[in-house]
Amino acid sequence: MIVSDFKRELDSLTPLFLAQSIAIIGASENPVKPSGQPLVALTRAGYKGHIYPVNPRHKTLLNLPCYPSIDDIPGPVDLAIIAVPARLTIAALRQCADKGVKGVIIFTSGFAEIGSEGAAEQQKMTDLARATGLRICGPNCMGIFSSRNRLMANFAVAKMPDRVLVPDLLGFISQSGGFGAAIYEVVREKGYGFSHFVSTGNEADLEFSHYLGFMAIDPHTKAIGGYLEGVKDGAKFLQAADLALDNGKPVLLIKAGRSEVAARAAASHTGALVGSEQVYSAVFKQKGIIRVESLEEFNLMLPIIAKDKIPRGRRVAILATSGGSGVMLADKCAQNGLEVVPLQDKTRAALAAVLPEFASTANPVDITSAIMTSPNLLEKCADLVLADPGVDMVIVTYWTAHGEGGGEGIRLDNMIRVGNRTPKPLFNLIWGPEQAVREALNLMNDELIPAAREADFAIRALASLAGYNEFLQSRGDNTLPAPTIPAEAKQKVADILRHLPPGARLTEYTAKKVLQAYGIPVTRETIAVNEAEAVNAAADLGYPVAMKIMSPDILHKTDTGGVMLNISSPAAVRESYHRLMEAALAHNPAANLEGVLVQEMLPGGTEMIVGIGKDPVFGSTVLTGLGGIFVEALEDVALRVVPVSPRDAEEMLSELKGRKILDGLRGQPPADTEAVQEIIQRVARLAEDFPNITELDINPLFVYPRGKGACAADALIVLE
Amino acid sequence: MIVSDFKRELDSLTPLFLAQSIAIIGASENPVKPSGQPLVALTRAGYKGHIYPVNPRHKTLLNLPCYPSIDDIPGPVDLAIIAVPARLTIAALRQCADKGVKGVIIFTSGFAEIGSEGAAEQQKMTDLARATGLRICGPNCMGIFSSRNRLMANFAVAKMPDRVLVPDLLGFISQSGGFGAAIYEVVREKGYGFSHFVSTGNEADLEFSHYLGFMAIDPHTKAIGGYLEGVKDGAKFLQAADLALDNGKPVLLIKAGRSEVAARAAASHTGALVGSEQVYSAVFKQKGIIRVESLEEFNLMLPIIAKDKIPRGRRVAILATSGGSGVMLADKCAQNGLEVVPLQDKTRAALAAVLPEFASTANPVDITSAIMTSPNLLEKCADLVLADPGVDMVIVTYWTAHGEGGGEGIRLDNMIRVGNRTPKPLFNLIWGPEQAVREALNLMNDELIPAAREADFAIRALASLAGYNEFLQSRGDNTLPAPTIPAEAKQKVADILRHLPPGARLTEYTAKKVLQAYGIPVTRETIAVNEAEAVNAAADLGYPVAMKIMSPDILHKTDTGGVMLNISSPAAVRESYHRLMEAALAHNPAANLEGVLVQEMLPGGTEMIVGIGKDPVFGSTVLTGLGGIFVEALEDVALRVVPVSPRDAEEMLSELKGRKILDGLRGQPPADTEAVQEIIQRVARLAEDFPNITELDINPLFVYPRGKGACAADALIVLE
Repeated sequence: MIVSDFKRELDSLTPLFLAQSIAIIGASENPVKPSGQPLVALTRAGYKGHIYPVNPRHKTLLNLPCYPSIDDIPGPVDLAIIAVPARLTIAALRQCADKGVKGVIIFTSGFAEIGSEGAAEQQKMTDLARATGLRICGPNCMGIFSSRNRLMANFAVAKMPDRVLVPDLLGFISQSGGFGAAIYEVVREKGYGFSHFVSTGNEADLEFSHYLGFMAIDPHTKAIGGYLEGVKDGAKFLQAADLALDNGKPVLLIKAGRSEVAARAAASHTGALVGSEQVYSAVFKQKGIIRVESLEEFNLMLPIIAKDKIPRGRRVAILATSGGSGVMLADKCAQNGLEVVPLQDKTRAALAAVLPEFASTANPVDITSAIMTSPNLLEKCADLVLADPGVDMVIVTYWTAHGEGGGEGIRLDNMIRVGNRTPKPLFNLIWGPEQAVREALNLMNDELIPAAREADFAIRALASLAGYNEFLQSRGDNTLPAPTIPAEAKQKVADILRHLPPGARLTEYTAKKVLQAYGIPVTRETIAVNEAEAVNAAADLGYPVAMKIMSPDILHKTDTGGVMLNISSPAAVRESYHRLMEAALAHNPAANLEGVLVQEMLPGGTEMIVGIGKDPVFGSTVLTGLGGIFVEALEDVALRVVPVSPRDAEEMLSELKGRKILDGLRGQPPADTEAVQEIIQRVARLAEDFPNITELDINPLFVYPRGKGACAADALIVLE
Repeated sequence: MIVSDFKRELDSLTPLFLAQSIAIIGASENPVKPSGQPLVALTRAGYKGHIYPVNPRHKTLLNLPCYPSIDDIPGPVDLAIIAVPARLTIAALRQCADKGVKGVIIFTSGFAEIGSEGAAEQQKMTDLARATGLRICGPNCMGIFSSRNRLMANFAVAKMPDRVLVPDLLGFISQSGGFGAAIYEVVREKGYGFSHFVSTGNEADLEFSHYLGFMAIDPHTKAIGGYLEGVKDGAKFLQAADLALDNGKPVLLIKAGRSEVAARAAASHTGALVGSEQVYSAVFKQKGIIRVESLEEFNLMLPIIAKDKIPRGRRVAILATSGGSGVMLADKCAQNGLEVVPLQDKTRAALAAVLPEFASTANPVDITSAIMTSPNLLEKCADLVLADPGVDMVIVTYWTAHGEGGGEGIRLDNMIRVGNRTPKPLFNLIWGPEQAVREALNLMNDELIPAAREADFAIRALASLAGYNEFLQSRGDNTLPAPTIPAEAKQKVADILRHLPPGARLTEYTAKKVLQAYGIPVTRETIAVNEAEAVNAAADLGYPVAMKIMSPDILHKTDTGGVMLNISSPAAVRESYHRLMEAALAHNPAANLEGVLVQEMLPGGTEMIVGIGKDPVFGSTVLTGLGGIFVEALEDVALRVVPVSPRDAEEMLSELKGRKILDGLRGQPPADTEAVQEIIQRVARLAEDFPNITELDINPLFVYPRGKGACAADALIVLE
């Protein structure tokens, strides 16, 4: 599916979020029942469309005419809510299709989440959606809220918000109804407005990625949040994430299932396909998705996003009214990847002019107890450090007695003023008596000034947003080297793979031909089928040479005596040929022997691996790592899904724990990481062009000092 | 200093905390000035002793007779507060000594924290304390609060707490006055009572460790908290920590200075000696000190400690009212080292009997929205999982509407009841509208039921306490092997070291004699001073042998051609001898050559390192790591201060990132980690017995498969 197809598909979600008319099948007027809540809520909220309750047992509900069946509704129906027992659900869905309804929300539970019988019933929904174009949200979901038409098609959100500080700030998608509803309530209470909210349920038809894509192109949504357990179709998710990037919308996801037990619980909970943590982590990095670890952190990012104050870098200045709290903050900033940078001389001089002599003007700035007698000092200092061009954000921490004696100490309105007049984020960490802090935080919140009591979430929020900004900046950076793949590469490889059966394992010789087509350096080598050919080959290559048995039936050449190294004379070549053949037949008398590979001996280099793998959700992945114990003892590998950008390739090497080895240890020259990055990208292009390559291992890849390149010493490819 | 000396020294702190009479030198009655606050606060609090204001400018202060000088006070004075300008401080201090005052608190600033001139003045205080036995708290401190006599000898704490849920729960020591005072207020507001609180200031005399020791043996303190930037005397700190362990008191420290910038800031702030993060981290592990990362976490541990409900293990059960929140909690528990264990069949059956069919009885238990109609369900389920003998703690998460409609949903009093009747910690994570949550948390707090809104701090608090319990259990465990050091070892090594000058570097041969004395296996080897001796030595050892040049002037033997390996004939021995001598003279014609070391060739093993280092605060340290790139590329070393217990040695190996290599990779047999642990302990004993060994490197230590031991292949020792 190409992007424009997916984008076109997203139009079909419009009737669910912007419906002009809603039918409620199985409606009641009991507001605590799922079947009753939408009717009550839509009516109370002043929904801007037609409401059609459907229930043969009532003539009217809440003074609206109630229809015996959806067929009886006089006008067209954009959206139907199905809130009938499971056994009646499919029939109701068929009636919706017949009526020409465009979208259906199915509250009803008892489908894939209860086992195979339920899954079979659910499949009928999927089939019907595919056949008719009807779009389904659910089953087993809590439905949709959309502020545009005051559309309360759910039983998660009871009423329209009382106050909205920022309308349409957030679209939210939740794979847990209850958890999502709780998040909605907590965020709403802060005054952050939702454009749309959807509980996705079992995703018989529409899935998380559809909603993400829809909100990405929705002009009324500024940022997108979500609770994600697992993605069904990785390609759709990647496209939706790209749409969010193209439309400048941060995506903030709470992703569950990091630990094994949690993944198991998540799977049992919605029947979602919970892919490997490592792959999700890669996808989030590749698409600039902000991973949120807690709701508090989520809430703290929103006012910064709302005011377009995402930090432009990682450089933080800290202003504290006690030395100890400044020190603690500096620690936490450093731990979270923020840089507590030295302030400019000009800034320090200006600070020194207003602060007492014993105060520290280094970062963290210690304002000292002088604040007690000069309550405006903090505001002055905040202005000064915010004006420092080397500072991207400022954290200020102080004690408030607000509400306990009024104007004493720091004036909160001063801090609000300074926060409002700067284009950088100014984060207030406020301590004090509980009641005073609560009031102070509410005051700050009402002005969209980011503020909290505990530093941890605040610093994580700032670091996440700084990381997002870094991603955006490097996304537009075209200076990193992208390799040119030879035009004929794809055809060449297609020719090699054409005649191979499914599940085929390519010998080293053939695998390297594939790599070579994509411009990946490999050893010079020839297949020899007798001793004389081997001697000729060795002469052509130049001594010493390596010799390896070539057979599709012998995969672990080294373990079976199928590799001989450092052969340095014609006589030794003959002898080796003989011994390789003997060893092969001893190991497997029936092995189909293709001959002996005569290969140049590579000089030693830093050993790395580069490979292709397959993820059931996201498809082909590319990984790299340092060879040997680094992979085996430390699982020190970096992974990305394809396509892999130049930036991705660079990041992969940066995140290796053993990275120092590439930089050159003990006076060793640094390794040619650019060559490795190029090879990673070439391998990724191969994976993209040939999704039927389920496994590729370049192991070892010998990497030479900077400028000297890298070379695949051995390779293996397995087809689907 | 032996422990009993330190314990005796602690008696001298009694007059500071339990003074029967207090003089305030430079007293005023202005409650916002440091000189005024103690007089006002002591009077208002109803201090149970004599108060003597001293100030020549007043006849009376707050209706108390005011004395022109401390000399004029009629009775004895236990404690004096000095709140006069810096230039008058030393004179006032001398007068206190003359009067026979036992303890002095110096509020005055302007000493070591302002530079060398101030430091010299401060040294006079130290000298005076040493000479007279007078104990000093400060200077540049906020003083002491002690609940016992309602002693408000400080300007941090304005008044006695209004309400105390648990008296004497906490003693608190802070190296930051302002930060400490803020912590005090926040903790006090929760109703957790302080036995004592001290702001330590510049620590001219009494230091953090004295207060820690004093509170450790104080019968009225249940747990000890602190904000620590740096320790002055490591030995005292270790002794104080041991006293806390012996007296069953958890120590919870906020330790600043983890990052470089923070360490620099901390050093400038109090002039404290901020030692290496790695050493502090080791000390905390060795002494079971709970490292606290935030005040929130600190507060959440206190009710659990107060009620003696420290979890007996790491096994956690999670009860959630939505699937998503259970999954998220499981993730966070796993990330923090808690184990989300399977529940017993009996427990699951009991849960199934009360829960709806579609609920999950696996851990995390998903109670589902059934909670809406059966508000008692959570209490029932909590009782059931708490009764599971395989569960050490329970986390329950739910939504409260408390205060917004009253009795609907979960009854908080039910949750308080179940929390009170279990000996295990039951942690409540409560979501809901802000006001409702706040009220719910206050209700819980008043009953000492641990509760919070955000999971992060709660889980860290539980994990920290579980870790503390683990430490206590293993502290009493005598089953781990402790090596027996030969009785004559110390004498033997003393004989070797006696004649060596300060700064001496021992050759490999001599260093190994030292190791051998402490029972550490070393290569068999002999010094030969001519070719014939070398040949004889090789014959005795058996071929092949290694040969190395021995000279105190040639330290990097390998780099200078001073090592020859795998020598397998008498002729080769002769030849090697000759070449080694040549190479040595070529390298350094003036080198003092002791001969050639002829050594058995060890079979290859896993290469490790074991060594001794010196920390300026804590003295000798022992470290271990895997050899080569693990140390160099990954800084993968484990460190402890001496003495090193069997448990410490075991933990050191466990915490190596490359631990898997020791467990046996790719079918390799596991390495003899017991032998390495024993060697670590023997090296630690050597370090303990000879603090003048500033450096020892066993590199490499060859480690063989389990049961086959380990052997030092090379060694170096450097003396102080």
